[in-house]
Amino acid sequence: MRNANVLGITDGTPIQGSSIAAPTTPVPTSPSTAMDRMVARLALRLANSPPIALVLWDGQELAPAGRSPAARFHLNTRAALYRMLRNPELHFGDAYSTGQIDVEGSLLEALEEIYRAIHARESDRYASTLRWLRSYRQKNNTILKARDNIHHHYDISTDFYRLWLDQAGMQYTCAYYPAQTMTLEQAQIAKMNHVARKLMLKPGETLVEAGSGWGGLALHLARRFGVRVRSYNISAEQVKFARQRLKQSDVAELVEYVEDDYRNITGEYDAFVSVGMLEHVGLDHYRDMGRVIDRCLKPQGRGLVHSIGRNRQQQMNAWIERRIFPGAHPPTLREMMEIFEPNEFSVLDVENLRLHYSRTLTAWLDRFEANIDTVRSMYDETFARAWRLYLAGSIAAFNVGALQLFQVVFTRATNNDLPCSRMHIYRDHP
Amino acid sequence: MRNANVLGITDGTPIQGSSIAAPTTPVPTSPSTAMDRMVARLALRLANSPPIALVLWDGQELAPAGRSPAARFHLNTRAALYRMLRNPELHFGDAYSTGQIDVEGSLLEALEEIYRAIHARESDRYASTLRWLRSYRQKNNTILKARDNIHHHYDISTDFYRLWLDQAGMQYTCAYYPAQTMTLEQAQIAKMNHVARKLMLKPGETLVEAGSGWGGLALHLARRFGVRVRSYNISAEQVKFARQRLKQSDVAELVEYVEDDYRNITGEYDAFVSVGMLEHVGLDHYRDMGRVIDRCLKPQGRGLVHSIGRNRQQQMNAWIERRIFPGAHPPTLREMMEIFEPNEFSVLDVENLRLHYSRTLTAWLDRFEANIDTVRSMYDETFARAWRLYLAGSIAAFNVGALQLFQVVFTRATNNDLPCSRMHIYRDHP
Repeated sequence: MRNANVLGITDGTPIQGSSIAAPTTPVPTSPSTAMDRMVARLALRLANSPPIALVLWDGQELAPAGRSPAARFHLNTRAALYRMLRNPELHFGDAYSTGQIDVEGSLLEALEEIYRAIHARESDRYASTLRWLRSYRQKNNTILKARDNIHHHYDISTDFYRLWLDQAGMQYTCAYYPAQTMTLEQAQIAKMNHVARKLMLKPGETLVEAGSGWGGLALHLARRFGVRVRSYNISAEQVKFARQRLKQSDVAELVEYVEDDYRNITGEYDAFVSVGMLEHVGLDHYRDMGRVIDRCLKPQGRGLVHSIGRNRQQQMNAWIERRIFPGAHPPTLREMMEIFEPNEFSVLDVENLRLHYSRTLTAWLDRFEANIDTVRSMYDETFARAWRLYLAGSIAAFNVGALQLFQVVFTRATNNDLPCSRMHIYRDHP
Repeated sequence: MRNANVLGITDGTPIQGSSIAAPTTPVPTSPSTAMDRMVARLALRLANSPPIALVLWDGQELAPAGRSPAARFHLNTRAALYRMLRNPELHFGDAYSTGQIDVEGSLLEALEEIYRAIHARESDRYASTLRWLRSYRQKNNTILKARDNIHHHYDISTDFYRLWLDQAGMQYTCAYYPAQTMTLEQAQIAKMNHVARKLMLKPGETLVEAGSGWGGLALHLARRFGVRVRSYNISAEQVKFARQRLKQSDVAELVEYVEDDYRNITGEYDAFVSVGMLEHVGLDHYRDMGRVIDRCLKPQGRGLVHSIGRNRQQQMNAWIERRIFPGAHPPTLREMMEIFEPNEFSVLDVENLRLHYSRTLTAWLDRFEANIDTVRSMYDETFARAWRLYLAGSIAAFNVGALQLFQVVFTRATNNDLPCSRMHIYRDHP
């Protein structure tokens, strides 16, 4: 089934056969027919005619009408074409990952054009019908079947993320670039300071964190702002990593990493923080999360939730939902209010850092590409291509406004111990 | 029916008989019975037992159990007690306005205690039942009957607001106090600058305003930030006032006041602003408002909506809704999203200025009290007391967290011309 028919036509980085690469000889496919070409044109039209050329397996090219293509998609097998028609989002991802589709030109620009085209279509009056069709199609078929979830399939290790995340904090969440010249490392530190200032953390205060990742935020806030942090995470590997790094630090007594679900948080704290966990909580559990915060926040306590979001309700990209983040849901602000309103929290501040995530992802993708050979040797070509597509696709989604990044600061309704402006966040700003 | 029975027991400012005052001789009422006292205790319990003493018409005092009262409410007639029981919010307001109830001690502190008590009750599990009961009771009876709406009844003139609003801008909306020492005038200018900076207004840009009030914001933004403003307002008197003031200014060519509904806005603009109008738009029309903004905003346009709000859905205070602002509704953030989400606007920034409104209202109430004799001579004692209650009650509502003030900044989903931080708002901040 897998067919890494590369043909030397790639998106800048030539893809060589890797250790676990698929068959090197293309499966023979008969020349394209008039029917094939009609179907290819239909596929483009279903995507609302983005400026993309399709090059069929026999070299026949279908160019967009009236404009030069932003990129050429090489469909290396007939199967890739027909599958794409059934569920474009899912099968484009799978076909690109397995090399049945190659992209000539900029993958990022091509993805942005497709997002824009689909977006324009979804805003029109056919939107709901098309969404229904897509959700119907989604129930069928897949290439990777048993390995729906790449994480599950590949058992991704900390060493993989270390190749492309920031060295200091290992933060797999949006950085903050208040100055254009910042490195990823500086921008991740700026993000952590931004969070701390929004929370008005004072030395000696207590903070509880829902979702530690590799523990970078908890460690930084203890070291830089002198707070006591208890941080919850269900990933044994991440907690192990965080504890090891904590041991080597000078604030080992200030931080505790707890390997447990955030719903089991106990105690009362001056502040609550959750950076990049809400996307995985699931809408049905927002009320639970609100109750947990209500239980653990002191009367003058402050909270911050940082999450990928949407301008309006939308289905998750089928391929990312299926392969990269099962169950992920970027909420709208309206949906996020389900955490705050039932508990009568008072929202003090919402900031949208959309383009900061595009910059963060660009830094990650650059480092990822620089280490692509290591990625290939750790996993295989399919994995490397899937991860490239995911990173580039995410940049595109933030660039065209399909995804947002919300930081929401809140407190209890009755807390009047509030600053008279947000100037405290910007005192040391560049 | 009206009975301005003053007795010299007031909330700090002794109320003297005014030119249009009601009968000076109290209507004789028989001494209180055991039944009356039981009903009075029940009334307190229904308000969740705030620390308020009730003094009945014959001098009998019912003190709160176990604590000293924050204030004494003198019920000067039996009717005031029994009406209060039926619909406390509405009838307390009416009875205070007409002098059937007097407050000994601080009116503001008393109202805060009542808000807090009611709030605690509404958070409990009886909340929905009580809300239902109240909405049922609301359908019945009223003291002022035909003159439900004080505005309608009294024909309030610009001269009245001039007595207590800021002199420069005549702004009947929340000011911004980034420094504690600011006067109302300074804080209203700071608010207008805050709005302009959030909108990133540049000289020569065009701005459309929905709801001008007396035109102060439009005038200031043209003068200080060099933008061309078209400002819509349905109040003929306010538009007349605004135009007169504009004529005397040096930016007469930059501003146009249009006497029309915001739904009739025509043209395309670099920015949209609406300060203090949304409260009166009505939930059912949020979608219309969103469509208007979508129609009039350029591709890189920015918008700001400033409105009183809530942490959670709640009924408007019955008395304020009935007497002061018919149809007013302070929305939750979730409700506000009905303006933005259907049109896929991207929310960039939300700031909650709750305590700034408490300070603004305090400044207004101070000036109002300083001019109370003029108010009495312009209208009557009932009007003066109603307006005092409304201002003090609003301070209380903001102080205890029953009301919020949201400023929401937004743009189109595809606008990438965004600053890399909110530092531009704070560059010149105190």
